[in-house]
Amino acid sequence: MNFLDQCLKVKEASTELSVMTEAEKNKLLLTFADQLVQDADFIIRANESDIEEAIRNKITPSLVDRLRLDRKRIEDMAQGVRDVAKLADPVGLTLEEKTMPNGLHIKKVSVPLGVIGIIYEARPNVTSDSAALCLKSGNAVVLKGGKEAILSNTAIVASLQKALKSCGMNQNFVYLIEDTSRETTNQMMKLKGVIDVLIPRGGKSLIQAVVANSSVPVIETGAGNCHVYVDESADIEMALNIIDNAKTSRPSVCNAAETLLVHEKIAPLFLPRAAQRLAEKQVELRGCEKTREILGESVIPASEADYETEYNDYILAIKIVKDVKEATTHIRNYSTQHSESIVTQNSGNAEYFTSHVDSAAVYVNASTRFTDGGEFGLGAEIGISTQKLHARGPMGLKELTSYKYIIHGTGQIR
Amino acid sequence: MNFLDQCLKVKEASTELSVMTEAEKNKLLLTFADQLVQDADFIIRANESDIEEAIRNKITPSLVDRLRLDRKRIEDMAQGVRDVAKLADPVGLTLEEKTMPNGLHIKKVSVPLGVIGIIYEARPNVTSDSAALCLKSGNAVVLKGGKEAILSNTAIVASLQKALKSCGMNQNFVYLIEDTSRETTNQMMKLKGVIDVLIPRGGKSLIQAVVANSSVPVIETGAGNCHVYVDESADIEMALNIIDNAKTSRPSVCNAAETLLVHEKIAPLFLPRAAQRLAEKQVELRGCEKTREILGESVIPASEADYETEYNDYILAIKIVKDVKEATTHIRNYSTQHSESIVTQNSGNAEYFTSHVDSAAVYVNASTRFTDGGEFGLGAEIGISTQKLHARGPMGLKELTSYKYIIHGTGQIR
Repeated sequence: MNFLDQCLKVKEASTELSVMTEAEKNKLLLTFADQLVQDADFIIRANESDIEEAIRNKITPSLVDRLRLDRKRIEDMAQGVRDVAKLADPVGLTLEEKTMPNGLHIKKVSVPLGVIGIIYEARPNVTSDSAALCLKSGNAVVLKGGKEAILSNTAIVASLQKALKSCGMNQNFVYLIEDTSRETTNQMMKLKGVIDVLIPRGGKSLIQAVVANSSVPVIETGAGNCHVYVDESADIEMALNIIDNAKTSRPSVCNAAETLLVHEKIAPLFLPRAAQRLAEKQVELRGCEKTREILGESVIPASEADYETEYNDYILAIKIVKDVKEATTHIRNYSTQHSESIVTQNSGNAEYFTSHVDSAAVYVNASTRFTDGGEFGLGAEIGISTQKLHARGPMGLKELTSYKYIIHGTGQIR
Repeated sequence: MNFLDQCLKVKEASTELSVMTEAEKNKLLLTFADQLVQDADFIIRANESDIEEAIRNKITPSLVDRLRLDRKRIEDMAQGVRDVAKLADPVGLTLEEKTMPNGLHIKKVSVPLGVIGIIYEARPNVTSDSAALCLKSGNAVVLKGGKEAILSNTAIVASLQKALKSCGMNQNFVYLIEDTSRETTNQMMKLKGVIDVLIPRGGKSLIQAVVANSSVPVIETGAGNCHVYVDESADIEMALNIIDNAKTSRPSVCNAAETLLVHEKIAPLFLPRAAQRLAEKQVELRGCEKTREILGESVIPASEADYETEYNDYILAIKIVKDVKEATTHIRNYSTQHSESIVTQNSGNAEYFTSHVDSAAVYVNASTRFTDGGEFGLGAEIGISTQKLHARGPMGLKELTSYKYIIHGTGQIR
């Protein structure tokens, strides 16, 4: 069966899935989790073939590491699926309810989005993870993984198909696209009316290509050029801990800090200590002229491009600003609207920062690293939205739903 | 100043607008309303020039009528602006709030979308109406009206600029694009990062062109291929009133019914009476074979295209179905997901219909004509969304907002 026909089958099946009870969906997820563990050897063998191929193709070791599955990782995947089963069903909730003067009873009820398309790269755990979140929220799912992981992904979806079958459910609830070429991605982006929303999970270039070319609505996720601003009145110890944590606890993730903004009055005191602290982790600093006056010429001069870059690495751009106003202006100009933090003891400046910075998560005296579905109490997340339409920030099950109005009357006409 | 520079100025001004108080925004709207009335003669003269040009260009009389402003219409526009001022401010509301075990206090707060682009056609009242809704919800607005109304729109925006000036506010909160060429529309669709969302208000071809070509997120509005399904157990008098109202009370609007579906068991009883009732309003009927067997060959045979068409006219497609299941399948295949209604006394069928029909508004025993911001108690609307992302159904002030997370800590790191 070809790609389009298969997607149409998923669309058709999505109605059936949208009206499934919580118990049915949980049964499916728990069966899937058990099946994953049972099929672990098979999945690992498929994964080994992917890895051999990746090594032949001279893929970088860090990518090979992200690709690799072992029994522990498969058990973690299964546990992830079980954790999703435990989350409350986001579908069928009455969000608002009212009776109008003409007697019409209007109820706003949460419903699944329908068919969600996930376009992702090399990590096979995204397959089970995304499928579980979509299914629990009543959405059918079309998965387009990277070519490096195709055999692993196929094996994981085979376990899910077995689970669907043993639960007596429609196997078209989930479809993994076998053809991993870019051409298929382009076709997916044109399936408006079949796929209800596309969520690209991966690097910046993937996300930008999807946003620019898709006629299916897209939720942008993941790009994080995050800032920490150390205000004049900051507690210096707190500021040191926060920038250290935000930059170095996990530099490769989207909520890591990329630029440090420092109030000019505190800079002479704070920056030398920050430089010392960050040197322990071999963080490369790239600073503005004033930063270099304080820290010396070992600091690389920062260019415009530095302030625009999400390094995802042990590199930090630094800029000295004259006040909170200049800090927020810099952030508005350079940020990807993901996460920003102010370290301050001045509540007026904190209020100015939180109201004038237009990002998904705005922190006062805490690390940007907390922007995460788990840390926000959502249980799990399918990504972190950096757009303002639909969902913003960490997206859990609720963010995978829409709503409809159900109106009961007794013959009302207008 | 060129188009792009002007849009960048609006973007810059949007931050200032986003933090304005409700009192400031209301003062602006009330000043604008008064200014409109004060400038009525000037606006009418500008409108007369538009109308002369439209007549020279042989625009249809119905379009000329939509274009025409008189003192009464301008007073209505002013009253519309005053009504928006009365609505509650949707910005700055705490939507959720919690303290996590690590002490982080997380607040989800409603914020404006930023800059809203409205692309519309010939009706000049959309100018004041959209501007008022955007400003009250803290959004700056870029307006791109139709060329037929350019002088009227320019005059209306001049009144708004006077109001901004007399309130001492930034005149870049609102920008009407002077160049009404399609080229400017295309440029708007590429302004991702400057314009936060585009809302096309107008015909199907306009909306589809924007959806297909915009890299700015779009909210689709207005296309309504709406259905009324008369179930086996329907109260026939009620069904007659509902289809008459849904089809004929205002055929040109998006919530009017276009197709009547009838259960085969009630069809022989119901259809002749429906035909008689609709004949009083000169409604042309286009039916399936079974419909023609009952009503005779004066009924035009319905083609696939008929079931796909939003007539916006005194034409109704009819199809006889064997049960509620076939009715919902037909609706899922042909509907634009706007508004559908079932007429039934059977609560099981009503429940099946409301859960299986995937449209913004699903009615039981009421006319589809109620899908409207005013009728739903939203006060006013900027359009009716037929998509599932962000907002669905009538969009009021709340649907013109996003949210952000504001997180207060005491030095937490992860």
